[in-house]
Amino acid sequence: MDSGYDDSLPGECLRKPDWKQLKLYGVGDPVAMFSSDSSCLSSRGRVSKWFWDSAEEGYRTYHMDEYDEDKNPSGIINLGTSENKLCFDLLSRRLTQNDMLHVEPSLLQYPDWRGHLFLREEVAKFLSFYCKSPAPLKPENVVVLNGCASLFSALATVLCEAGEALLIPTPYYGAITQHVYLYGNVRLAYVYLESEGVKVKGLILINPQNPLGDIYSPEELQEFLGFAMRHQLHVIMDEVYMLSVFEESLGYRSVLSLERLPDPQRTHVMWATSKDFGMSGLRFGILYTENQHVATAVASLCRYHGLSGLVQHQMAQLLRDHDWISQVYLPENHARLKAAHTYVSEELRALGIPFVSRGAGFFIWVDLRKFLPRGTFEEEGLLWRQFLDNKVLLSCGKTFECKEPGWFRVVFSDKENRLRLGMQRVRQVLERQPQVVEEASPCHTQEPSTQPI
Amino acid sequence: MDSGYDDSLPGECLRKPDWKQLKLYGVGDPVAMFSSDSSCLSSRGRVSKWFWDSAEEGYRTYHMDEYDEDKNPSGIINLGTSENKLCFDLLSRRLTQNDMLHVEPSLLQYPDWRGHLFLREEVAKFLSFYCKSPAPLKPENVVVLNGCASLFSALATVLCEAGEALLIPTPYYGAITQHVYLYGNVRLAYVYLESEGVKVKGLILINPQNPLGDIYSPEELQEFLGFAMRHQLHVIMDEVYMLSVFEESLGYRSVLSLERLPDPQRTHVMWATSKDFGMSGLRFGILYTENQHVATAVASLCRYHGLSGLVQHQMAQLLRDHDWISQVYLPENHARLKAAHTYVSEELRALGIPFVSRGAGFFIWVDLRKFLPRGTFEEEGLLWRQFLDNKVLLSCGKTFECKEPGWFRVVFSDKENRLRLGMQRVRQVLERQPQVVEEASPCHTQEPSTQPI
Repeated sequence: MDSGYDDSLPGECLRKPDWKQLKLYGVGDPVAMFSSDSSCLSSRGRVSKWFWDSAEEGYRTYHMDEYDEDKNPSGIINLGTSENKLCFDLLSRRLTQNDMLHVEPSLLQYPDWRGHLFLREEVAKFLSFYCKSPAPLKPENVVVLNGCASLFSALATVLCEAGEALLIPTPYYGAITQHVYLYGNVRLAYVYLESEGVKVKGLILINPQNPLGDIYSPEELQEFLGFAMRHQLHVIMDEVYMLSVFEESLGYRSVLSLERLPDPQRTHVMWATSKDFGMSGLRFGILYTENQHVATAVASLCRYHGLSGLVQHQMAQLLRDHDWISQVYLPENHARLKAAHTYVSEELRALGIPFVSRGAGFFIWVDLRKFLPRGTFEEEGLLWRQFLDNKVLLSCGKTFECKEPGWFRVVFSDKENRLRLGMQRVRQVLERQPQVVEEASPCHTQEPSTQPI
Repeated sequence: MDSGYDDSLPGECLRKPDWKQLKLYGVGDPVAMFSSDSSCLSSRGRVSKWFWDSAEEGYRTYHMDEYDEDKNPSGIINLGTSENKLCFDLLSRRLTQNDMLHVEPSLLQYPDWRGHLFLREEVAKFLSFYCKSPAPLKPENVVVLNGCASLFSALATVLCEAGEALLIPTPYYGAITQHVYLYGNVRLAYVYLESEGVKVKGLILINPQNPLGDIYSPEELQEFLGFAMRHQLHVIMDEVYMLSVFEESLGYRSVLSLERLPDPQRTHVMWATSKDFGMSGLRFGILYTENQHVATAVASLCRYHGLSGLVQHQMAQLLRDHDWISQVYLPENHARLKAAHTYVSEELRALGIPFVSRGAGFFIWVDLRKFLPRGTFEEEGLLWRQFLDNKVLLSCGKTFECKEPGWFRVVFSDKENRLRLGMQRVRQVLERQPQVVEEASPCHTQEPSTQPI
């Protein structure tokens, strides 16, 4: 819609995978890495701690020095974490209405670990309506839990043996690496690389895609699903951004909207309120699967991923309120996302920076390759740190296992004053950088196509 | 306090363990058990599903036919699940006060996975006060998560390698078996049996004890802690019933009240609102540990055990309200627990049934050995089923890995009308049973001591 650079190389990598060439990446051999540590922890405990200590460095630096217009105007602006901060006013008003605070004995007692039936009924109705399913979805196919991180952990565990792998197109939301590994001991296999002879059990698809802000067409979906069926692979469809497609012309389709799933017993859909309702702190996610073995095995693990009965009541109230969702929340949310997206993409154009973004999600995938003289990941990391030193947090391509150095994800779903200041700080850093001559970058010599394949 | 049968054999087993004789029990070799299953699940998924399908049979039968005074008077009375149903009136009133429904942006955003600081501060103050700690406890030693099942899972994972074991005195709350196994692949070793050469990493102590309804004296605690230190074992102290000691004369002491812990870096305390505040459906538990490696590794896993920011606010409000807790809730809760306990124990005495119970927790450990002619676990299971067929759900000793058949746990923390009907149904079943001549049972020939060792 608003960029001449839609068909980036990563997009190409994503779309034309060489299925025979896989390589396992991500966690390396962490157990070996930490065997000499002298703490009281098990090797697994040391790996957990390592993920905490290392992967969240930028996030924690940000938390120690958060920007606040009045109290800390020189603090860090966070354009790195994918959260929608545009609609707290709407959400606060809705979540403090009278129907929300409701206490009854059954909500305070041990729940059905699949989730209370009243909530699973509302989830099924909600998904039927907003995913435009050809037939009504069923409450017995719904499992409720405290967010999609937990769901990745549970699904990886019940679908794969320890040491097996799940395929994932890159670049992808990098935290999935630890979600499937920390408890499940499952690895990811990236579709563009060489094989290592590990057993692959499934395929993870994120749609709308993170970090590309792009969507899969129904034809592409069918191609992936058909491939998975032929190889008896599970498909884990992560659709946490499904209601955050703010360009209607994109024609986004949930996998639940398809007339016929090639292999419904191996198709497992995840959704959450974290992104589409801007409430990552509420910890509410759901699994939709027709496979009752999978639903039950995940439900059994839900003892460890349960959420408060009071929150289950709140979520049922929210999801059943189609009037508010369709008339108030979604139109306003989409308008605000679109305005913020327009602002950041125009800033990028003014800076002469190519980017990928088609009108879904909270982020723009930005091509800063021309600022890396030697085109290495080391330079990418240094540039990331310069941004942080200049008080703006971004996510670099390495985090998403992007194949080539120099790509960054910029989150735009934030208030205008913070966006303005954040982009100003981005510009300051880039203006200090030496630039590679632009024609040397292969990507930019290509003609942009209006519709990526 | 109110029974001449306090010093039961299981109590003896508990107190005089032969540390050199251990045997691993519980899960057997579940992976081998399910290798021929044709579902889409991994072997781990099949184990999870098996725990769901089998272990919760009684619980699910109950849920399909729950007793309701008006709508289903012939439904099942649940004296099996350890929940406190005596104080919903007090809790509902407190949880619907104005301070409870509070929404602000930070509560809706990604949290500190250790728990919001405002909540960890309140937890530290709450525990300092109600555990009577010699010095103020610290917020940085607190990790907040969605209940103690999750905490068992996380601690087992970060303290033990797969296949290692934790010691536990039996009989014990049997669900711990799956909590440490399903994700962590850790087993339990019972202290009274033969060794199998597995590496033991720690010791789990439940105080007040479940199912015995008994407490450890400070001297006993020191003995266990000293033993653990000598063998470099972690100690996981499960104190979820610490405020449900309704006989003050027992002199209960939390491990956090001790002047000096022998090995503070290996002592990890868990507490939750499930039992002491009768809110198992709220999913709120905490870890207190001075070991920052353990705290961080658990916090890293808290991505999978997180709870809503809105609930974190509610819990902070509840825990800081010492006036309500000390003046209203605890006195009334203890009075009601005591009355219910008195009622059930008098019913048991009238039936001539020996039992163990000293004034802590929600349950009475009942000796029905004289109703098992051959004294087998098969007979115990048949008796359990007769209770269920007569519409009263109890927990049998096997569930707690009790060494000898014939013990049952009866939960008394319920409303009088349900207790009366439940005990009536228990009586009906027992009156139909042939009885072993009482003198043949070794336990009952012993003189009861007034104070168990």
